[in-house]
Amino acid sequence: MAARALPDPEMLANGVAARDRAALARSLNLLDDKRPEARRRAAHLLATLPADKLDRSGHLIGITGPPGAGKSSLTSALIQVWRQRNLSVGILAVDPSSPVSGGALLGDRLRMLAHDHDAEGGVFIRSLACRGEYGGLSAEVWPMSLAMLAAFDVVLIETVGVGQKEIDISKMSDTTCFVAQPASGDSIQFLKAGIMEVPHLLVVNKADMGTAARKTLTELRTTLKKQFDPDGWQVPALAVSATKGTGIDKLADTLESHRVWLVEHDLLATRRKRFQAEWILKRLREEFGRFGIERLGGEAGLFDELTRRHGSPFDQYDALRDRFLANWKT
Amino acid sequence: MAARALPDPEMLANGVAARDRAALARSLNLLDDKRPEARRRAAHLLATLPADKLDRSGHLIGITGPPGAGKSSLTSALIQVWRQRNLSVGILAVDPSSPVSGGALLGDRLRMLAHDHDAEGGVFIRSLACRGEYGGLSAEVWPMSLAMLAAFDVVLIETVGVGQKEIDISKMSDTTCFVAQPASGDSIQFLKAGIMEVPHLLVVNKADMGTAARKTLTELRTTLKKQFDPDGWQVPALAVSATKGTGIDKLADTLESHRVWLVEHDLLATRRKRFQAEWILKRLREEFGRFGIERLGGEAGLFDELTRRHGSPFDQYDALRDRFLANWKT
Repeated sequence: MAARALPDPEMLANGVAARDRAALARSLNLLDDKRPEARRRAAHLLATLPADKLDRSGHLIGITGPPGAGKSSLTSALIQVWRQRNLSVGILAVDPSSPVSGGALLGDRLRMLAHDHDAEGGVFIRSLACRGEYGGLSAEVWPMSLAMLAAFDVVLIETVGVGQKEIDISKMSDTTCFVAQPASGDSIQFLKAGIMEVPHLLVVNKADMGTAARKTLTELRTTLKKQFDPDGWQVPALAVSATKGTGIDKLADTLESHRVWLVEHDLLATRRKRFQAEWILKRLREEFGRFGIERLGGEAGLFDELTRRHGSPFDQYDALRDRFLANWKT
Repeated sequence: MAARALPDPEMLANGVAARDRAALARSLNLLDDKRPEARRRAAHLLATLPADKLDRSGHLIGITGPPGAGKSSLTSALIQVWRQRNLSVGILAVDPSSPVSGGALLGDRLRMLAHDHDAEGGVFIRSLACRGEYGGLSAEVWPMSLAMLAAFDVVLIETVGVGQKEIDISKMSDTTCFVAQPASGDSIQFLKAGIMEVPHLLVVNKADMGTAARKTLTELRTTLKKQFDPDGWQVPALAVSATKGTGIDKLADTLESHRVWLVEHDLLATRRKRFQAEWILKRLREEFGRFGIERLGGEAGLFDELTRRHGSPFDQYDALRDRFLANWKT
């Protein structure tokens, strides 16, 4: 594809703000395109999107948990509740297990739902799950989330596993929600042992399974009794049934109460700024290693510098890249 | 500590070959010491150890699984069987959850066992679990394993999680053994979805728990029915009870049969060479990033070069590091 076939960033930005589906799809493609000219245009696109929307409005929710826990059904149930509340919803599905576990089918069901029952175009779903072996795990999820934030009230990112190597969802969501299934000991063990990061909200799905679900919920609540996230939020645990629709309203309320809590504690904008700095640092570390980070001023220095700066993640990354390469001989 | 306080590598090498406990402990410390003079001596130590032992003898076993699956009890039970078979055993415990889940206590129990019942000093245990937040996950496990291989017939490395970010045990063990607990759905889900790498051997511990263990075993066997590791080994699943001692003999036999299979297929030496190359590549990637790997000839080129070379991992790493830095301006 020649560079001239790439879309015009300002037109895209207008389309995104108007929730035009084609513009949204093209924007997400552009943000994930690694070619230099595409990157330049992607930076322009992000710079053209309304900064206040990206900084402090909307709600970026990460939903995570092992394959088979029912994340897709839960997403589907949440979409219905949010639409009843008149909120527009954007979904980024990054679960590499989806094609295996029948997620592609579910994705179709979600798309049907979005088309059939949503004349206003208040739901937009983008699945990155079919991108080869690792699904969308190598995708530019952070920049994509920003474009989604410019268009929707709620942006939900669905992944497998908290603290996963490729995409650490807790480092890019305002609110991280972990979905466990009844009687799944491993997640609780990892949580107890401090290996899995504590999410903001724990959900036991398939509550219709009865005793096992209640037992898992009790165990989670005991584990979480005195557990707060680093910001001081006390982590709740809920039981829901995505297929029967039980507890979904309560779940939507609890997600919203965490967003309100973040805003009240002046943390929403701060955290998004931090996510952006962490995204840039991670990319720099991947490209230039520990050596590069040191030569650019060290982890802490760079983090400080980045949280004080304005501008799109791509622009900031490129400036630091050039600074490093200036010292390379050939 | 002044550099002159560092031990003499040739004396250490003699001590390691004689299974002298103090020499072993000092060797492992030296191999994990990042200071330049220590690295120089560690390289010398590895170069002095008998190369044939490191290349193709002994058995390097990785044992992994979620916290609470009973890896430490299983290790303890395996030690007894191996000692009855007159095999010497070295253990590297790298499980960061151990201090939390009572592993430190188990470690003490293992040490007692080793001291009280083993007059010949045929068991040596080194726990890296108390090294701060991430346990021994930042330790130089590969070089440490090499020193252990020079001293013991069986070297067992205990970690949490297959395919874990910090230490991918499947990239440094001749045989990887995953321990699941009954009714733990997550591991099976991750395995099914292809997110978790398939180990060489699956063990359901706590078989005394009856129905749940049998159900998990059946589920694992169904999942594994047509699953082979990339080399063509058909993965077996066993039920054991570490606390009651049931199935441990069979487990030891199966571990040994995988080692024999590797030798018969001429894979043991090849794989160890590959592990060494991968260890070096990983370190280079951490230090110099994708950029560094490219400038040094690319992943495939470097891998080729490294598998053809002889010499300790440290020497090979340093040579490549110097090659990279020659192009750096200041």
